[in-house]
Amino acid sequence: MSLDNTALLTDHYELTMVSAALRGPLASRSCVFEVFARRLPDGRRYGVVAGTGRVIDELTRFRFGDDEIAQVSQFLDEDTVAWLRDYRFTGDIDGYREGELYFPGSPILTVRGTFAEAVLLETLILSILNHDSAIASAAARMVSAAAKRPIIEMGSRRTHERAAVASSRAAYLAGVAATSNLEAARTFGVPSAGTAAHAFTLGFAGPDGPDEKAAFAAQVEALGVGTTLLVDTYDITQGVRNAIDVAGPGLGAVRIDSGDLGVLARQVRDQLDSLGAPDVKIVVSGDLDEYAIASLRAEPVDTYGVGTSLVTGSGAPTAGMVYKLVEVDGIPVAKRASHKASVGGAKSAVRLARASGTVVEEVVYRTGSPTPDGEGHSVRPLQIPLVRGGEPVADVPSLTDSRAHLADGLVSLPWEGLGLSHGDPAIPTRYEL
Amino acid sequence: MSLDNTALLTDHYELTMVSAALRGPLASRSCVFEVFARRLPDGRRYGVVAGTGRVIDELTRFRFGDDEIAQVSQFLDEDTVAWLRDYRFTGDIDGYREGELYFPGSPILTVRGTFAEAVLLETLILSILNHDSAIASAAARMVSAAAKRPIIEMGSRRTHERAAVASSRAAYLAGVAATSNLEAARTFGVPSAGTAAHAFTLGFAGPDGPDEKAAFAAQVEALGVGTTLLVDTYDITQGVRNAIDVAGPGLGAVRIDSGDLGVLARQVRDQLDSLGAPDVKIVVSGDLDEYAIASLRAEPVDTYGVGTSLVTGSGAPTAGMVYKLVEVDGIPVAKRASHKASVGGAKSAVRLARASGTVVEEVVYRTGSPTPDGEGHSVRPLQIPLVRGGEPVADVPSLTDSRAHLADGLVSLPWEGLGLSHGDPAIPTRYEL
Repeated sequence: MSLDNTALLTDHYELTMVSAALRGPLASRSCVFEVFARRLPDGRRYGVVAGTGRVIDELTRFRFGDDEIAQVSQFLDEDTVAWLRDYRFTGDIDGYREGELYFPGSPILTVRGTFAEAVLLETLILSILNHDSAIASAAARMVSAAAKRPIIEMGSRRTHERAAVASSRAAYLAGVAATSNLEAARTFGVPSAGTAAHAFTLGFAGPDGPDEKAAFAAQVEALGVGTTLLVDTYDITQGVRNAIDVAGPGLGAVRIDSGDLGVLARQVRDQLDSLGAPDVKIVVSGDLDEYAIASLRAEPVDTYGVGTSLVTGSGAPTAGMVYKLVEVDGIPVAKRASHKASVGGAKSAVRLARASGTVVEEVVYRTGSPTPDGEGHSVRPLQIPLVRGGEPVADVPSLTDSRAHLADGLVSLPWEGLGLSHGDPAIPTRYEL
Repeated sequence: MSLDNTALLTDHYELTMVSAALRGPLASRSCVFEVFARRLPDGRRYGVVAGTGRVIDELTRFRFGDDEIAQVSQFLDEDTVAWLRDYRFTGDIDGYREGELYFPGSPILTVRGTFAEAVLLETLILSILNHDSAIASAAARMVSAAAKRPIIEMGSRRTHERAAVASSRAAYLAGVAATSNLEAARTFGVPSAGTAAHAFTLGFAGPDGPDEKAAFAAQVEALGVGTTLLVDTYDITQGVRNAIDVAGPGLGAVRIDSGDLGVLARQVRDQLDSLGAPDVKIVVSGDLDEYAIASLRAEPVDTYGVGTSLVTGSGAPTAGMVYKLVEVDGIPVAKRASHKASVGGAKSAVRLARASGTVVEEVVYRTGSPTPDGEGHSVRPLQIPLVRGGEPVADVPSLTDSRAHLADGLVSLPWEGLGLSHGDPAIPTRYEL
């Protein structure tokens, strides 16, 4: 097992297809594959593209070394194995930048290359985009609901240990302020944060019972008075009193992790104020999702800690994107059977906006056709170059840039597009195909 | 970034707690942490423990090397950093074996060590168990619903690229026959399988239109007549005819990936039989979950391909397990505030069964108390040693053994426990605490 190699993060059938394709002209035919979502998750108004940066990074580690070759040799012929040994993606990729909003049918990623080199990337590309976009899409709703109050992402323990790292990244892209996850801090530079759990307070219990004050004193000594004390291990009112007794009014914050968070936040705010500690902030956590966050908007909450619902996409754990062959040697192709029919031919897209900046429509059109006329609206092309000749382009937007881009994008939506209730996509998509 | 190191797959606050604990006696107090689920996901009758083997493996790679030290030095004092440099878990872990069924309150994993060494493992242990158990629990329901027909797991593209590997492992544990994921084949020895996607058939299109027969011929030439041909790219009836024309009645199978799978399976079966190909099997795929699988029980389906719903836990993407400090220097401790109160003290559990093998009750009792009396039922202890003095024990059950153990466990449930409809846990849990 080599965790730095990504070549086996793919499906068996991608390789058997390559094997069959290599026996004839198909392997080297010029192909266009397109990533898109047929629909948004139930009731969602928009999706957020995330993971593109990771796709480009993992692509460079998609190589068949000796270990990978040994594995695939178990079911592949020698010619295919030899071809895989030399495998490098040499094609081009264009796509929506990270942090771009997307809608049903948006051509999120366009991969151009030979059939064999491009088909091989299907699973890896979809895994990354489907996961990261699901998390970013859910996180963006939470960030909107929090109305500028900061959110700390702390869901690592509720998802696969490596998915947790990507989740932190996607959440940060979506506007979350910080993460609990240290690997995300190292790998992607996401600010990390955290202070203490109930176990810390419980650990000070002795034969005579709990000693919350000793726990708080030890934490303040180690982490400074600006720390956040968790006040709901035993009795919250006593906990708040202990916190201020120990730390004084310069304490950074108290955290409440259970109970009716709205009621408790008000009680604790009143208590802190009456204790002469009006500057001590209140952090709430515990099963929060975008709806719970919104319901706390009128309460004296300063920071939200969000876990499970964020890293599981708040009901939509995958974005449902697909990777479809749409063109072979310039000929548009599409599956015809049943309800999964799609439209052949490489596509591009633009988004139209009013002078105010509010977007009104997305137009998907055949790549190479004239850019659609905005009829008085501004017209912004949505795809940018990401990979040329197999190499990442120099100016792929950074995570920080993408984060700002998304913040702008959300502001550009018609107001009803930011609603949490179920509804149609925030803007319609028109097809000029 | 080093993907082989797991030390940063943890939360910032685990390390700040260690830092604060190291300044006093807490760091070295003898502690017991317990992993359990307060409840099963909505309406589920049982959970399946999965991931234990991965926990043990990743534990051995939980080390703070230079890179990890550089990261945590940004927010930790020198003493803590020095302590982390030497960090090795030296304690003991007992737990439910992989493939064991669990219920609310089951003491799934018990970690014994000093506060500092044991608190540090919370996030990593929970990430693995919560993810893998969620997938295995969903997969077990699908395997039950499939009633001995094989299932191929093919959901890698719908989840994080590394979560996909763990999902394949968990699905195999739960009785799924094979996976599409090649990394799972390499890392965990899960059998991998796959043939071709629509893209392969579409790739044979030319200026004169599609050429499904050429695609089928190329696939049969490369993969042999025992392969599975995907027949719904264009017209299914014509696709089946083309498949038999090209491959003859010795063809392995046809796959249908869209449409009303029950209706289509019957049509295709009739057509195959009338074409003199009664031995050609039918594989169905496309948005299957346990309910769809069950609804196809009366149809002539031979194999199910399951993707999205499996790797996302079919509505329950995380198992909701928590890691709680329950004992400090022999003193039981527990959070008291609000609805998240739990019971202190280290716990053990046994499962009682009738002579027929049908289980009737789980009994959770204080570790060290006498094993509960079965009152005529057989009594099976549920925890086994997993780690001693920081080292994995020699006889941790293999994935294959665990798979067989789960199959036995499912058979031991009262019949209503295998129902797919919402209901209570299959057996009650009695607390002798």
